[in-house]
Amino acid sequence: MNENKTPLGNLGKYGLIDHLAKKIKAENKSTIKGIGDDAVVIDSGGKYALVSTDLLLEGIHFNLIYTPLKHLGYKSVIRAISDIYAMNGTPGQLLIAFGISSKFFVEQIEEIYEGALLACNKYNVDLAGGDTTSSLTGLTISVTAVGTVDKKDLVKRDGARPNDLIYVTGDLGAAYTGLQLLERERKIFEQKKSIQPDLGGNDYVIGRQLKPEFPAGVLDDLRKAGIKPTSMIDITEGLASDLMQITRSSGTGCRIFHKNIPIDYETSRLAEEFNIDPLIPALNGGDDFELLFTVPLEMIDKVREIDKVKAIGHITEKGSGNYVVGADGSEVELTAQGWKKQ
Amino acid sequence: MNENKTPLGNLGKYGLIDHLAKKIKAENKSTIKGIGDDAVVIDSGGKYALVSTDLLLEGIHFNLIYTPLKHLGYKSVIRAISDIYAMNGTPGQLLIAFGISSKFFVEQIEEIYEGALLACNKYNVDLAGGDTTSSLTGLTISVTAVGTVDKKDLVKRDGARPNDLIYVTGDLGAAYTGLQLLERERKIFEQKKSIQPDLGGNDYVIGRQLKPEFPAGVLDDLRKAGIKPTSMIDITEGLASDLMQITRSSGTGCRIFHKNIPIDYETSRLAEEFNIDPLIPALNGGDDFELLFTVPLEMIDKVREIDKVKAIGHITEKGSGNYVVGADGSEVELTAQGWKKQ
Repeated sequence: MNENKTPLGNLGKYGLIDHLAKKIKAENKSTIKGIGDDAVVIDSGGKYALVSTDLLLEGIHFNLIYTPLKHLGYKSVIRAISDIYAMNGTPGQLLIAFGISSKFFVEQIEEIYEGALLACNKYNVDLAGGDTTSSLTGLTISVTAVGTVDKKDLVKRDGARPNDLIYVTGDLGAAYTGLQLLERERKIFEQKKSIQPDLGGNDYVIGRQLKPEFPAGVLDDLRKAGIKPTSMIDITEGLASDLMQITRSSGTGCRIFHKNIPIDYETSRLAEEFNIDPLIPALNGGDDFELLFTVPLEMIDKVREIDKVKAIGHITEKGSGNYVVGADGSEVELTAQGWKKQ
Repeated sequence: MNENKTPLGNLGKYGLIDHLAKKIKAENKSTIKGIGDDAVVIDSGGKYALVSTDLLLEGIHFNLIYTPLKHLGYKSVIRAISDIYAMNGTPGQLLIAFGISSKFFVEQIEEIYEGALLACNKYNVDLAGGDTTSSLTGLTISVTAVGTVDKKDLVKRDGARPNDLIYVTGDLGAAYTGLQLLERERKIFEQKKSIQPDLGGNDYVIGRQLKPEFPAGVLDDLRKAGIKPTSMIDITEGLASDLMQITRSSGTGCRIFHKNIPIDYETSRLAEEFNIDPLIPALNGGDDFELLFTVPLEMIDKVREIDKVKAIGHITEKGSGNYVVGADGSEVELTAQGWKKQ
């Protein structure tokens, strides 16, 4: 037994993964990409197979007080397949395993499955494997997504080069703001049960939190336009954290511009209601389920033709840091929540 | 919201999966085999890719009181890769995700990883993906194994035919008996802390519980001998339950013979100490991590050349039931724990 006791918080989530990954070396020829990207890439002779797995825990990733079970199933699927899309792949199969406490009823599990099936049908994914096991504690959901990608189409995190443009899809920070709103109303409700939650006028941010979609169509559009990103990741931890995954893997820095970061009006309004700068949820909120990718500068005109994508900055040389540039030209260093103490 | 409330216990584990699976249809051409086998089978153009996932929950699948963390990591890997072997595949990659409560230390997670890496190295598997997330409750481990199999070599559960012989590897019931012993000593220890656990002379059953191995070499031997099983599964729920998965998938019955079921001397002795028939842990104990497979009758001489396998009975016609035949010729119907209330 090892007697050293380093609190987990000292390393943080990514610190821990890095720390553990140091000892790990891929040996099999079929392992094209192991730890350190959205999905594992496996060469089985034809296309690459892509596999990613997510573990969702009650109280951490979802709160059953305000998460309808059907939405929980739906979002679990989006979360899993977004890792496959982020490697420019096409998800094909999904495996779901549940840890269920005895307080649950069959009909509730059916609701989660129904939500999962809805998402699977929408994104043309087969729910191909499942397992249920009893749990002594809360609800646990493990989702594994499997996909394929033509070898030439694979996009990893490590291909960004200085002067590449940085693009994002959709808008950012809405899901996090929706979560804050749901949390606020939950607290009010728990203090005084007679007060019903007031969520009116905030449908967009709540929808983004509870029933997110993934911009898979953008990948089709990029392929059709002959644009292959140099690097790509799905935005799930927050723009700052996910962008730093790219610059770190690619050995570069970046500059993104405050005024270019797409934030929905509802997100901005609510952030102000919460007395926070709307940039905070956009940079550090989670669950956006948007795409972040880089493209060589010379493709700028081609990318301009693609709907729903926006240039937010560019990749810089190694050692030049990761910065967000304000309207006045001031530069603030990006920090990624996941790298610090949680 | 669905207002019906059917307790989960009414369906049992497999009942629930069956119930949910009814609504699920595989649509993608790449989905060769979905729900209902050891692993999902995916056609990505070359070999088939195999993917399986397991969810392990503290207090259900392992008890940290008597499970060394290194062994926990080791066994998690064995559990995951056994599903790939059971389809006659070769595991190549492994993804592990942890849900960790703040009571854990970095060194403890490292110990689990070290155990996992030991098993990965032994079975030539790359630890290719990982994730850690905080947990409000106990330790949760999700393990996804990925493998490949030549299309012609794939063995599913549904190919057993009447008169096929039924084989098992190794011996059965030891891991379950080891668990009972560990549980007994835990209870004694909790009642009186000054009493140290008495595990002497039971190394085999305890080893089978805490650090199981998988008989992967048998698969090589079968391939070399030109024997392709008609059906196969790994014995993890207990011989009865796993055999009934085969007969149910294949639309057959079976007869197995009490006297042929391999049980180690230590298992028998301990079972008697616990006042249970040694057949009970062999039929209904879990975590054996042995192979159960069927082979056409005409191959009997070829299989006789293979080490570590034993014929225990044969497949019968549909509707003829699943029975274990006693020394006196009496027949007792097999029951599978997983199908009943848990």
